[in-house]
Amino acid sequence: MPASEKTLNDLFLHTLKDIFYAEKQILKALPKMAKNAESEELQQAFETHLEETRGQIERLEKVFEMLGKPARGVQCEAINGLIEEGKEVMEDFADSAALDAGILAAAQAVEHYEITRYGSLIGWAKRLGRADIAKVLEQTLNEEKAADKKLTSVAESQVNLKAAS
Amino acid sequence: MPASEKTLNDLFLHTLKDIFYAEKQILKALPKMAKNAESEELQQAFETHLEETRGQIERLEKVFEMLGKPARGVQCEAINGLIEEGKEVMEDFADSAALDAGILAAAQAVEHYEITRYGSLIGWAKRLGRADIAKVLEQTLNEEKAADKKLTSVAESQVNLKAAS
Repeated sequence: MPASEKTLNDLFLHTLKDIFYAEKQILKALPKMAKNAESEELQQAFETHLEETRGQIERLEKVFEMLGKPARGVQCEAINGLIEEGKEVMEDFADSAALDAGILAAAQAVEHYEITRYGSLIGWAKRLGRADIAKVLEQTLNEEKAADKKLTSVAESQVNLKAAS
Repeated sequence: MPASEKTLNDLFLHTLKDIFYAEKQILKALPKMAKNAESEELQQAFETHLEETRGQIERLEKVFEMLGKPARGVQCEAINGLIEEGKEVMEDFADSAALDAGILAAAQAVEHYEITRYGSLIGWAKRLGRADIAKVLEQTLNEEKAADKKLTSVAESQVNLKAAS
């Protein structure tokens, strides 16, 4: 079909596939981040978010089902770049006092990517008359926002302080 | 120097170089986004943000100066990926009713990346006893948050509505 016939439904489905791919990459990256983190509080935050991510992937599968479409991902250059940056910081700051601060910042960059993507999807779902889908995705958005806040509080409470010492 | 001697100062400088590179890439990408956007309101939002971005780059140059370091960027895979995704959506949805919604979402993903990076830098500057630098970066953070809100209001007011019609 010509590009000009594409609609918001197509954009929604494309972005859903993008975040589905992204969540799966995050599922692979989180255990590595938890393993590299030095502070127990940060490790714990990553492990909790790993569990949440599993639930978020299930929710996305449910949304694909609600749309009558197969659950499939598409390559997402943004999440690949974000995860790559996280790997770089883990290598460059390995065994340093700033390691946790770097990992934490990388994780927050990933959270913000998810927050903006789910925000767009929710707005579009509402416009498309799919309040039911918006409601499912809002559960995830709330979890992502809470995860970002949790990381900010970990950062403020100890990681940066330790790195500055 | 061995990695283990790296400090929060090093992480701060590395991340400053990362966002310096990112802002310069955004400066190049924004005119293309403005050109491709169909709605005048969205074009206007991008043009305003282009001016702001110039000021943000100057602020970063000032921060490098305050640190007594040369203003230099480092490759940032995350922003490369985010901008690449924006290009893809502009190609895939060219001449479609969902084009502006897609461009807008891509721009918001970029804004969120900047928001999280400046947030980390400000937290670290404070820990490092550089409230003066934190203050400069806070001006930019506030502009980025306002730009993100502006894009949300453009999205709600017209772009998505048009795309759904």
